[in-house]
Amino acid sequence: MRQTDVRPSPNAVWLRDNCACPQCRDPRNGQKLRSVTDTDPGVRVVELTAAKVVFSDGHVGVPPEVTPYADDRIEDAKDLWARIDPPCGDWAAFETDPAHREFCLDAVLRVGFVLLRGVPDVLTAAAGFGYVRETNYGRLFDVRVEATPVNLAFTGLPITPHTDNPYRDPVPTVQLLHCLSNAVEGGDSGLVDGFHAAALLRAEDPAAFATLTSTPVTFRYADSGAELTATRPMIGLDPRGRIREVRFNNRSLQPVRPEEADAFYPAYRAFAEILYRPELQVTFRLGPGDCVVFDNTRVLHARTGFADTGDRHLQGCYADLDAIASGLAVLRRRPVPGAVDTLRALFAGPGTADYLGEDVTQAVHMLQTAACAKAAGAPPALVAAALLHDVGHFTGEITGHDLMAGTDNRHSHVGADWLGRWFGPAVTEPIRLHVAAKRYLCAVDPAYYEVLSEASKHTLRVQGGPMDAAEVAAFEAEPYGRDAVRLRRWDDEGKDPARPAPAFDDFAPLLASLVER
Amino acid sequence: MRQTDVRPSPNAVWLRDNCACPQCRDPRNGQKLRSVTDTDPGVRVVELTAAKVVFSDGHVGVPPEVTPYADDRIEDAKDLWARIDPPCGDWAAFETDPAHREFCLDAVLRVGFVLLRGVPDVLTAAAGFGYVRETNYGRLFDVRVEATPVNLAFTGLPITPHTDNPYRDPVPTVQLLHCLSNAVEGGDSGLVDGFHAAALLRAEDPAAFATLTSTPVTFRYADSGAELTATRPMIGLDPRGRIREVRFNNRSLQPVRPEEADAFYPAYRAFAEILYRPELQVTFRLGPGDCVVFDNTRVLHARTGFADTGDRHLQGCYADLDAIASGLAVLRRRPVPGAVDTLRALFAGPGTADYLGEDVTQAVHMLQTAACAKAAGAPPALVAAALLHDVGHFTGEITGHDLMAGTDNRHSHVGADWLGRWFGPAVTEPIRLHVAAKRYLCAVDPAYYEVLSEASKHTLRVQGGPMDAAEVAAFEAEPYGRDAVRLRRWDDEGKDPARPAPAFDDFAPLLASLVER
Repeated sequence: MRQTDVRPSPNAVWLRDNCACPQCRDPRNGQKLRSVTDTDPGVRVVELTAAKVVFSDGHVGVPPEVTPYADDRIEDAKDLWARIDPPCGDWAAFETDPAHREFCLDAVLRVGFVLLRGVPDVLTAAAGFGYVRETNYGRLFDVRVEATPVNLAFTGLPITPHTDNPYRDPVPTVQLLHCLSNAVEGGDSGLVDGFHAAALLRAEDPAAFATLTSTPVTFRYADSGAELTATRPMIGLDPRGRIREVRFNNRSLQPVRPEEADAFYPAYRAFAEILYRPELQVTFRLGPGDCVVFDNTRVLHARTGFADTGDRHLQGCYADLDAIASGLAVLRRRPVPGAVDTLRALFAGPGTADYLGEDVTQAVHMLQTAACAKAAGAPPALVAAALLHDVGHFTGEITGHDLMAGTDNRHSHVGADWLGRWFGPAVTEPIRLHVAAKRYLCAVDPAYYEVLSEASKHTLRVQGGPMDAAEVAAFEAEPYGRDAVRLRRWDDEGKDPARPAPAFDDFAPLLASLVER
Repeated sequence: MRQTDVRPSPNAVWLRDNCACPQCRDPRNGQKLRSVTDTDPGVRVVELTAAKVVFSDGHVGVPPEVTPYADDRIEDAKDLWARIDPPCGDWAAFETDPAHREFCLDAVLRVGFVLLRGVPDVLTAAAGFGYVRETNYGRLFDVRVEATPVNLAFTGLPITPHTDNPYRDPVPTVQLLHCLSNAVEGGDSGLVDGFHAAALLRAEDPAAFATLTSTPVTFRYADSGAELTATRPMIGLDPRGRIREVRFNNRSLQPVRPEEADAFYPAYRAFAEILYRPELQVTFRLGPGDCVVFDNTRVLHARTGFADTGDRHLQGCYADLDAIASGLAVLRRRPVPGAVDTLRALFAGPGTADYLGEDVTQAVHMLQTAACAKAAGAPPALVAAALLHDVGHFTGEITGHDLMAGTDNRHSHVGADWLGRWFGPAVTEPIRLHVAAKRYLCAVDPAYYEVLSEASKHTLRVQGGPMDAAEVAAFEAEPYGRDAVRLRRWDDEGKDPARPAPAFDDFAPLLASLVER
């Protein structure tokens, strides 16, 4: 480039303002050391390479790296959901395993919540996610329901989905609810993805969506020591019109101006009716030690009704999303462990969980399945498939806790997709098809059904029962259908508490040889 | 109203949802006990009086009180300013006097900041305003500049106006900066009203305003333990387009997308150039024990350069506006003291401050002035005007601290407006005109100038000097101009340290007799 060149793009002012040389940007923290007004608006680029830029003001600098940052708080950065299996975490693993901590933090940011087991107390959990947002309710607050209620809110009445504290600004962006006791019948917890509901409203009733995004409404709470009001729209958008925040709580909503009521109420009701749809709500029961952590700008929480005999005691506190995102970003700086180390940790950690309805742990079951494959002379990829066929239960998306409830017929796909980061289709596809193979075998081999364990017979029903003729034909056309059938038969054999299981490390060299990426 | 009437206005659904009866709304905390979907969208009003409403669903309820809530965080709820006298508070008074606490909280919300003297430490001050927002920097952080800097940020370089932590979301909405030591030359503090600057940008360069309100930009901070990013527009608007939040900090601003640079940089620069205008900046010097508390969504803070010899040590922490608004609302529930009690407290408290450049306190000066009026046989309203003529220095809008700097030529108007809550024009208007009366007398009575104190001669210059002929004619046409001239001459007499001053309570019955509202 010649001395006299003017480069309109990339913009010279942009390059000068973002110069990455140590005079312009602190090398320790990346902060810029200059003001935008320090740049001559007529500055030109005289010379530009990947490592060096010379400006017409004489400065010799370094072009910036451009990271494509995007707003991580809008709907586009989220996984919207209806009725999903709750992402579940375990407090002991959270404290000791960075990968598990990463999974939990990511779940709050992307899914909107995580359900943690084994949490000692709510402030300890909050410290794992960031910083407590202290309010007039204290650093933590009690949600206690007693046999003799002194207040309507302390009865067993159901509480419809709502966000907390919409009368604050800034609203607490994270809420934690920790269960100390829940000895009542009923009193289950429910969560709704408010971003998903708002997106449905936009699709189904654009006028209502426009009203709720453009009408500031006032929420208010007052007691003897506090009087909080905040005036915001129920659905907050970013400047580009993307959903960014939901505030929904009829208890604290103040009367809108009477002249706004005709437009507001039909819109408000339309949104409420979507939020209250049972098919949008995840329900679960908090037991002692359970703690749900959720994005209070997005996820509404609810409680089903219960018989008000017995005690139910939760403790809650507030925190903020930005610290969770910071913690996650720092966690992700660590070197990523390879396939074998990651899988070894899965077998040693979550794999030791009970295999519900069976007499072996999940890890033992998979090791026995792999031993069967090896004894049958299967090729290495199929031995690996046998070893890893149930990892979908541990990768966080599906937890296994709800396996018997019939909500899991996807662990085969989840596991195959997850393993795809390292392995080719000869490993992943028999895994993907191994649940279908059971339905196939029950259709083509009547004797097969008889060898199933009682638990496996139960899950067959929730998995869809035996295949029909068209499904059988489609299955037989699958390139890895035959491998999946072989894997399936070893799977059924690998549930024997009396048989010794090989060690994970017996298969480590085989796994390492199969890693493709 | 007949059974069959349908009242489209006020909207029956609105009335039903907001029903204020004890079944529909918790009488203790005012929270609504029903969901919007509990209301039949076809509900009608059968009977409506001020105290009772009967609905077609059979419910007999109570119409709600409608409070005209408005968003207290947008520009419309603020007093925008350029170079003003900082609202000043005193920590001892803050702790003991609810009226003073009210003044301080209100200043942060309406003006955007308050400058407190005599603060023991920053966390104590924060507890007076709400709750500390803990961050990765801790509950508090040190801003320490040392003689041998180890970091560019710790030199005496000037720091241009900025908001703190724009890389957080939610951003800390309040910042406190407390001075432990400031033994350097220079190092003064500056504040800029970012809402005012944004409003100027909107008026002067609407296209730039549109760009900065519609372009989300990313701010980022990273160190070994944190990695914070937030993506928001520099100027945040409410859904109706009113200014609601300013984020401005070039240090942490990440490169915008190169294709956005051509539109973004001229707009960004235009805003920066307004923010950096000296005439928009309030400057003051923090001494030990001083603490400035400001709205970090609105007020930008800056530091002038200084010689980096000697020590300068500040401590800061973050908090939130909603707790300040709550504290203020609770304070305002207390019974309002009457005129005489309020004025007595002013004379006993802030009135004991030095009258800069004079040998008497401000309270003694006003009491002497009133004594002169009484001795001259002035009517009660004019005696009261003489007694109260300088209260504008104490009502919070004008502090008196910068009287000699020439920024105060409005205390007469401030005092008159403030006293208008109790007194009629015979009291307020001579006060409003008493500064003008000095300029009048200097124009029409050359001998008058000679009797002025040295301080009063100085302030005459900053007040505009003697009146010209047109001003003299206008002044003589004022109904209370003559009273103001009489008041002025007593004002000039009332600065004698040797003369005994009457007690405030000598005038209490006279004041009480003049209170009109």
